[in-house]
Amino acid sequence: MHVEHLGWSRSGALRILDQTLLPAEERWIEIATLPAIIEAIRSLRVRGAPAIGIAAAMGLVATLRFGARGVAAGSAAADGTTDAAAARAAFLALVDETAWAIGSARPTAVNLRWAMERMRRRARSADGAPDAVLEALRDEAQAIWDEDRAMCRAIAEHGQALMRPGIRVVTHCNTGALATGGIGTALGIVLLAAERGQGPEVFVDETRPLWQGSRLTAWELRRAGIRYAVQPDSAAATLMAQGKVDLVLVGADRIARNGDVANKLGTLPLAIVARHHGVPFYSVAPSSSFDPACPSGAAIPIEHREAAEVTAPFGVPVAPEESAAFNPAFDVTPAALVTGYVTERGIVHPPFEE
Amino acid sequence: MHVEHLGWSRSGALRILDQTLLPAEERWIEIATLPAIIEAIRSLRVRGAPAIGIAAAMGLVATLRFGARGVAAGSAAADGTTDAAAARAAFLALVDETAWAIGSARPTAVNLRWAMERMRRRARSADGAPDAVLEALRDEAQAIWDEDRAMCRAIAEHGQALMRPGIRVVTHCNTGALATGGIGTALGIVLLAAERGQGPEVFVDETRPLWQGSRLTAWELRRAGIRYAVQPDSAAATLMAQGKVDLVLVGADRIARNGDVANKLGTLPLAIVARHHGVPFYSVAPSSSFDPACPSGAAIPIEHREAAEVTAPFGVPVAPEESAAFNPAFDVTPAALVTGYVTERGIVHPPFEE
Repeated sequence: MHVEHLGWSRSGALRILDQTLLPAEERWIEIATLPAIIEAIRSLRVRGAPAIGIAAAMGLVATLRFGARGVAAGSAAADGTTDAAAARAAFLALVDETAWAIGSARPTAVNLRWAMERMRRRARSADGAPDAVLEALRDEAQAIWDEDRAMCRAIAEHGQALMRPGIRVVTHCNTGALATGGIGTALGIVLLAAERGQGPEVFVDETRPLWQGSRLTAWELRRAGIRYAVQPDSAAATLMAQGKVDLVLVGADRIARNGDVANKLGTLPLAIVARHHGVPFYSVAPSSSFDPACPSGAAIPIEHREAAEVTAPFGVPVAPEESAAFNPAFDVTPAALVTGYVTERGIVHPPFEE
Repeated sequence: MHVEHLGWSRSGALRILDQTLLPAEERWIEIATLPAIIEAIRSLRVRGAPAIGIAAAMGLVATLRFGARGVAAGSAAADGTTDAAAARAAFLALVDETAWAIGSARPTAVNLRWAMERMRRRARSADGAPDAVLEALRDEAQAIWDEDRAMCRAIAEHGQALMRPGIRVVTHCNTGALATGGIGTALGIVLLAAERGQGPEVFVDETRPLWQGSRLTAWELRRAGIRYAVQPDSAAATLMAQGKVDLVLVGADRIARNGDVANKLGTLPLAIVARHHGVPFYSVAPSSSFDPACPSGAAIPIEHREAAEVTAPFGVPVAPEESAAFNPAFDVTPAALVTGYVTERGIVHPPFEE
């Protein structure tokens, strides 16, 4: 079975496995306030486009339940004069505000905004008092998670069409269980292939600057007993030039209407070197990563992160003090470089007509 | 003026600035034994193809002067029965052995073998006793250094043809003064352009796994007052896609007869993404980096380094224990991806006829 890294605490808070500490330490943290869920998303304690959407939905529920201005506090402050309709309206406004705040924690992954919009719609459509709306939201967050688990499974099944015995795969960042609510997206295909005895081998891009490949993907592969090697992000081209790569599988943080893919920095050069060497390159993501409102990659906002991630890994300065850094968290791969997209509905090709 | 990082100690040992400690600390070390010079080259205390050649030549002299089996020890052990011709023959054999051992410290850069071969030839052609041969070798090592300084200058002058005001350059690894005996190769062009008021801007590939870009190139650029930003190696493609790169300049550890370039890992994907975006890509190196005996990149031996460089930077594990790593120190860029080669003789294009 795949790794679980999300959950509800007994009291109804969000529990997450702190991914910034892997692989050295497996520590769970509880999240029940708005600052805490925003910090957890911004600091990548939970990351991966689908997992962010799920954690945001669950974190929204926890925040509304426990936060300073949430249901518990609101109930405590209520007095006899409070009109039920006003209480409901105030709570719906709070849902909107909180969802907006969580939804703004990171700009690129569309799943985060998608999950927050879905939660806001559910709140408005739920009948009754704040308590009842909150329970509807809890069920909705759970549904988002459950659906993601099912989508991951469907993606992994469709992806088996790309697998064959002993296949050698390059992957970037982490797209496994830790990035989703289920078995994963791109890495999920490999994990399922291994379960079915295909004996895949994985070359894991370390994924600078935050090493999601070395830290997280390697950790998942090791637990699954799959053969792997980690490598500098710049090494994939050499493997391809030597004919040692059969397939590239990556995830997606947002896919525009024209098929352009925003994904972890390093995806674009990987797609270019794959094309140069004739290696198939697939982006693997649930439908919630597709953004029909976004015409092309040029319209996708790209998060730029702090210089220290590049210049001082683990706080050790590797560049002179006060060095500037160019540190976009994501890049945009043009659709023309993508062989195909593996989704829960099958393997599709642009342009997308829905 | 450019940084000096090599020298003779007063007693005639080799002095080097330990590049593994930069930028945090500027510590000089003295080298006077064979194990010490081999360790310094293998551990990258001195690195950069031209600088390795120079340090190897100077280190050979220091080793012959001070080493346990060197001239000093030999003289001490000498007795009246030693025949002058035998002493000379024994010393020449020692030169051969020692040069072979130093020349095998790293396999890829041709300058190292070239410098050792030149020193062996000089020893054989020098007249007289071991002391006289040693002085000839000292002069030869100094000549290798002086010639490299002049070559760097000539390369930088020829490279000015590629410069223009405000030019935006991506570079990889370190190809500045620290990599040579002079102003540098690829970075030397930029340093000279800055001296001449062209105001270049440099995007510095951090160069995983050992950060020669962040640690060494950024350090040189900062000292020279040149505007720069460090970046993950995977970020150059994004800059190019945004039209923010005018030129790519890299060095070379060995250039085959057909123009294939072995250079620091990451050069190949940089060349591929430059070609994809129509950005000119130049390899910059002295003639000593060209290996006429090597027909193509396929014949260049590539050094593979230990997994820990990738899996545990600064001793901090970023991958699960016992993870395998694919860690070639160099990659090979096919000549077809190289716009041109800047040498001390001018800017040339393959095929090479000499």
